[in-house]
Amino acid sequence: MKKIKVGIVGYGNLGKAVEELVAKDERFELVCVFSKRDVLGKYAYVENIGNLKKYNGKIDVVFLCAGSSSNLMEQASECLQYFCTVDAFDTHKKIKKHINDCNKTAKANGKVAFCSLGWDPGLFSLMRVLFNALGGNAYTTWGKGVSQGHSEAVRKLDNVKDAIQYTIPNQKIIKKLKCGQNVDNLLGLHTRECFVVADREYQEEIKNKIINMPNYFKGYKTTVKFVNEHEIVKHKKLYHAGEVFTHGGELKFKLKTESNPKITASVMITYSIVLYNYYKNKKYGAYSILDIPMADLLKNSKVFL
Amino acid sequence: MKKIKVGIVGYGNLGKAVEELVAKDERFELVCVFSKRDVLGKYAYVENIGNLKKYNGKIDVVFLCAGSSSNLMEQASECLQYFCTVDAFDTHKKIKKHINDCNKTAKANGKVAFCSLGWDPGLFSLMRVLFNALGGNAYTTWGKGVSQGHSEAVRKLDNVKDAIQYTIPNQKIIKKLKCGQNVDNLLGLHTRECFVVADREYQEEIKNKIINMPNYFKGYKTTVKFVNEHEIVKHKKLYHAGEVFTHGGELKFKLKTESNPKITASVMITYSIVLYNYYKNKKYGAYSILDIPMADLLKNSKVFL
Repeated sequence: MKKIKVGIVGYGNLGKAVEELVAKDERFELVCVFSKRDVLGKYAYVENIGNLKKYNGKIDVVFLCAGSSSNLMEQASECLQYFCTVDAFDTHKKIKKHINDCNKTAKANGKVAFCSLGWDPGLFSLMRVLFNALGGNAYTTWGKGVSQGHSEAVRKLDNVKDAIQYTIPNQKIIKKLKCGQNVDNLLGLHTRECFVVADREYQEEIKNKIINMPNYFKGYKTTVKFVNEHEIVKHKKLYHAGEVFTHGGELKFKLKTESNPKITASVMITYSIVLYNYYKNKKYGAYSILDIPMADLLKNSKVFL
Repeated sequence: MKKIKVGIVGYGNLGKAVEELVAKDERFELVCVFSKRDVLGKYAYVENIGNLKKYNGKIDVVFLCAGSSSNLMEQASECLQYFCTVDAFDTHKKIKKHINDCNKTAKANGKVAFCSLGWDPGLFSLMRVLFNALGGNAYTTWGKGVSQGHSEAVRKLDNVKDAIQYTIPNQKIIKKLKCGQNVDNLLGLHTRECFVVADREYQEEIKNKIINMPNYFKGYKTTVKFVNEHEIVKHKKLYHAGEVFTHGGELKFKLKTESNPKITASVMITYSIVLYNYYKNKKYGAYSILDIPMADLLKNSKVFL
């Protein structure tokens, strides 16, 4: 089989995880990594992100690995002029717009885009649709693990030097829901634990700002601990976990991973094989994980039914 | 929305579970149950199964609820001449042939067949394909619960008056696999516990026959206990459980149900709505759960991504 020529846009945790996996995978030829920064790649040549167009015709599929809160949407729009794209875009409120935008650009350029293919959104989305259709309300819990979005929200506060936020599921409430009991306030499903580096004079103010931050912390049971620059390093962990389950607990889907970026990369890479088949069959446009029948993942005639 | 006119073929545990659910579901009009036996239905009129043809044009979809080891395949073939069909056919070795047969008959008659849509095969098939594609070996365990197939195999032995077989997963071996250790003999994943009613003079012979029965018990750790007719009744339980998980335990899908037929019925009914849409859109032929994208289950614009 012809190798799929791939590129990686963005060289943070996710980009590095994709690089690590595709470099060792015979189905792919890793052409290069695109980055804004002038860095050395572990396996791949790192190209300046301004030179995307130069690779037109030399790369089949790019993995978009920038953070969703940065310029992933714009990068998708540019990349789809030259390549097919896979991303794990996870700003839930903007996913619909993102897929619509990608769909237009992909169709106009004869490309295929697979959008929001990670574990959440991604695998968990599949479960939510399945469980809800089966008649049970589906609940999602995350953690214990580091939330990049919440950590970033704290880091952006004035006088915060560094910060990490753990999302921690409340096992008591989860147990209630799994026993079929009703729970009034689903915000109680998670508690939030922040580790923050800041000078003492600002700590009280920062703590208040965190606890009252709308959308992110307000309404949640939040603890804020101040630590020094050395201590915060040991909180920069990649492990994560999560679960989708039905009211009553009849069906449960659990993920527990040592490396959040690695499992996300693994989903993107697995589905990129399907994407390439869609591309060869001219099924141009944008797809979410919900649009792709599981049969497309069957690699051989092995019977899974 | 126009109600979908449905029938039920077979009035055992599964047929009754489907009846119970569709009778209370506004999306359906339950036309009748077809049975060989002359019985009264709880909600539906029970029609002799010889009269299927009479309902040509009066029923849109039938739920095939006979046991897989009986004549479900032949019933599918006849029903598809008049109706669309949904079944939970679970003889894994024959599923491929069953789907191929249904595909031909459905296409020839302008009908749609959804095949083997229960929890296993069904929901668990989805997970096996997904987990295997993601690179982890997927393991499936069942239980603790009553296996209809194994119970039936014991009941068919000479001089057995009644029998029930529990499938029990071996938690020690499951734990090893979830920790990423290798296990030589996967038959050890389950133990089998039989409760049998038989006269004392035959018990030794029956026990030997069970323990050495190929495919069903040979190689498994099997216990056989003899009980009387009164005691066996308390073993006629409907609860069941099962799990699909990856080597290393990163991904897990668990089912635990009070009623095996009810969750199977629930899957069949949920997907029958999709089937009816396929039928209206002339997507004739046979489909397994792997062929149906999750997006087809989306009932409304609610965002699950």
